[in-house]
Amino acid sequence: MDSINVFAPATVANVACGFDIFGLAVDNPGDEVIVRKRNDDKIIIEKITGDDGKLTLDPTKNTVSVPIIKYLSQIDSKQGFDIVLNKKMPLGSGLGSSSASSVAGVFAVNKLLNSPLETKELLPFAMEGERIACGSAHADNVAPALLGGFVVIRSYAPLDFFQIPTPENLFVTIVHPDIEVNTKDARHILKNEVSMKKAISQMGNVGGMIAGLMSSDYSLIGRSMVDFIIEPIRSILIPQFFEVKMAATDAGALGCSISGAGPSIFAFSEGKETAEKVEKAMKQQFEKVGIHTNSYVSAINNVGPKIIG
Amino acid sequence: MDSINVFAPATVANVACGFDIFGLAVDNPGDEVIVRKRNDDKIIIEKITGDDGKLTLDPTKNTVSVPIIKYLSQIDSKQGFDIVLNKKMPLGSGLGSSSASSVAGVFAVNKLLNSPLETKELLPFAMEGERIACGSAHADNVAPALLGGFVVIRSYAPLDFFQIPTPENLFVTIVHPDIEVNTKDARHILKNEVSMKKAISQMGNVGGMIAGLMSSDYSLIGRSMVDFIIEPIRSILIPQFFEVKMAATDAGALGCSISGAGPSIFAFSEGKETAEKVEKAMKQQFEKVGIHTNSYVSAINNVGPKIIG
Repeated sequence: MDSINVFAPATVANVACGFDIFGLAVDNPGDEVIVRKRNDDKIIIEKITGDDGKLTLDPTKNTVSVPIIKYLSQIDSKQGFDIVLNKKMPLGSGLGSSSASSVAGVFAVNKLLNSPLETKELLPFAMEGERIACGSAHADNVAPALLGGFVVIRSYAPLDFFQIPTPENLFVTIVHPDIEVNTKDARHILKNEVSMKKAISQMGNVGGMIAGLMSSDYSLIGRSMVDFIIEPIRSILIPQFFEVKMAATDAGALGCSISGAGPSIFAFSEGKETAEKVEKAMKQQFEKVGIHTNSYVSAINNVGPKIIG
Repeated sequence: MDSINVFAPATVANVACGFDIFGLAVDNPGDEVIVRKRNDDKIIIEKITGDDGKLTLDPTKNTVSVPIIKYLSQIDSKQGFDIVLNKKMPLGSGLGSSSASSVAGVFAVNKLLNSPLETKELLPFAMEGERIACGSAHADNVAPALLGGFVVIRSYAPLDFFQIPTPENLFVTIVHPDIEVNTKDARHILKNEVSMKKAISQMGNVGGMIAGLMSSDYSLIGRSMVDFIIEPIRSILIPQFFEVKMAATDAGALGCSISGAGPSIFAFSEGKETAEKVEKAMKQQFEKVGIHTNSYVSAINNVGPKIIG
């Protein structure tokens, strides 16, 4: 096999209460990468579509290629590759766009080389793509994009993470308003200190979320979707945030918060039908003030990247 | 029934990473309360044993009677009671001594009145005992003492808590060194702010602990028993803390931390035999420096208070 076409999913990081530790993958949207072996040792980004020309073709600076370069160096391979990246989701949207590209690229190359590493072992390389994208090698998008499902990053040093089972009927609504929030900015406005009281409240919700997901207790999941630390700060960057959130819960969502660094907003619902009602209500609220949106309804993606050709 | 004898269990609060949100009940030690109906509306503490005369017989100031008084007022009862409290565990030990008394008292009175309230509904009254004992109505000892098992306090306002299942073969070793730490002091030395970095690390461990307990993943439980926030501060009050902790893990414990506000130290082990080895190692380490200890090995108590006569 000399060429491969890989899809890697968008991801919702933080998931309300789990800043930098929770992330989940969805079925839609996601990025596609086509990777072809070359006859030399060069890494070339041939083409990028869907990015409005915003992303660099320099392989040492693009999130799709940096993980590949680190990976090839680690396994001591001199194989070169041509890369075509088809961005199928908005950039800077809080949906793990850079992670999807990083994961798709390194997953594709590992497959073309007959999987010298296990999928799980690709994580540190994919994280290097995050470092390029937002200045910090966080794993809460990359890990679920790579492994699928709902992932908890227990520890960064040493890196220790695990997947937890999720209820079958849990659906994710994602609404992306057409405004741009830079992930670096969204990090910089956060505080370095948090009050003990808020930290305790947040820990209670982290516990509630995990127990709720593992025991399919939809009500507990919903009650745990309260973010005392990040949402009060980052929501300032998203016009209509509280109105949209209220529209979501009024329409039956279990809870609603910012996806990653925003501006996308996600909601959990029990059942696809409710998730679609929630989608409609959230979109309408944005449209009231003239903000155009893209939206997606999806189950949790338990597969991660997949070969599509 | 005019008289009842109730046992309520000791509890390990915080459980390493879950400050103010985690607590678990053990089979041993615990307090015993004998409650008898009177022919008038008086609440009398007849006698307290096992406290070296340290506890007040004033019913408006003792943790065994304050919850009873609040409870009787709430259900609008004029029934009076005589109370005998047999303290069967060290005071100020970090084992929820005050909670055990509070729970035993209010549970006994509710039973004698033919259970007008469900056991779970007794929690707010028992929490008033905590307020008397340590100035703060925290629930992480009272809730497991009342309900048994491993309890997570998701939220204090509104009060929202739940039990999670624990692995059958998980054993708790508790070693109480014969030194006294005042719970109020142990709270006052804590900081009001915590760094975002530590809060994130702690949340990761909260997630790991719950997932580990719910999936019987002993290794994950052990890896999650790291407290970045409280233990580094409170351990200062416990001589030999780090040596004892190392002795515990060297002897095979999954992890080891301070029980509640200390000075008791607890460890988790897989299997009773290991928990007993760990007990021996921890005791020996304290004895090396001439500190006398009481110690206990127990499974997790899934029952809570029980009628013993």
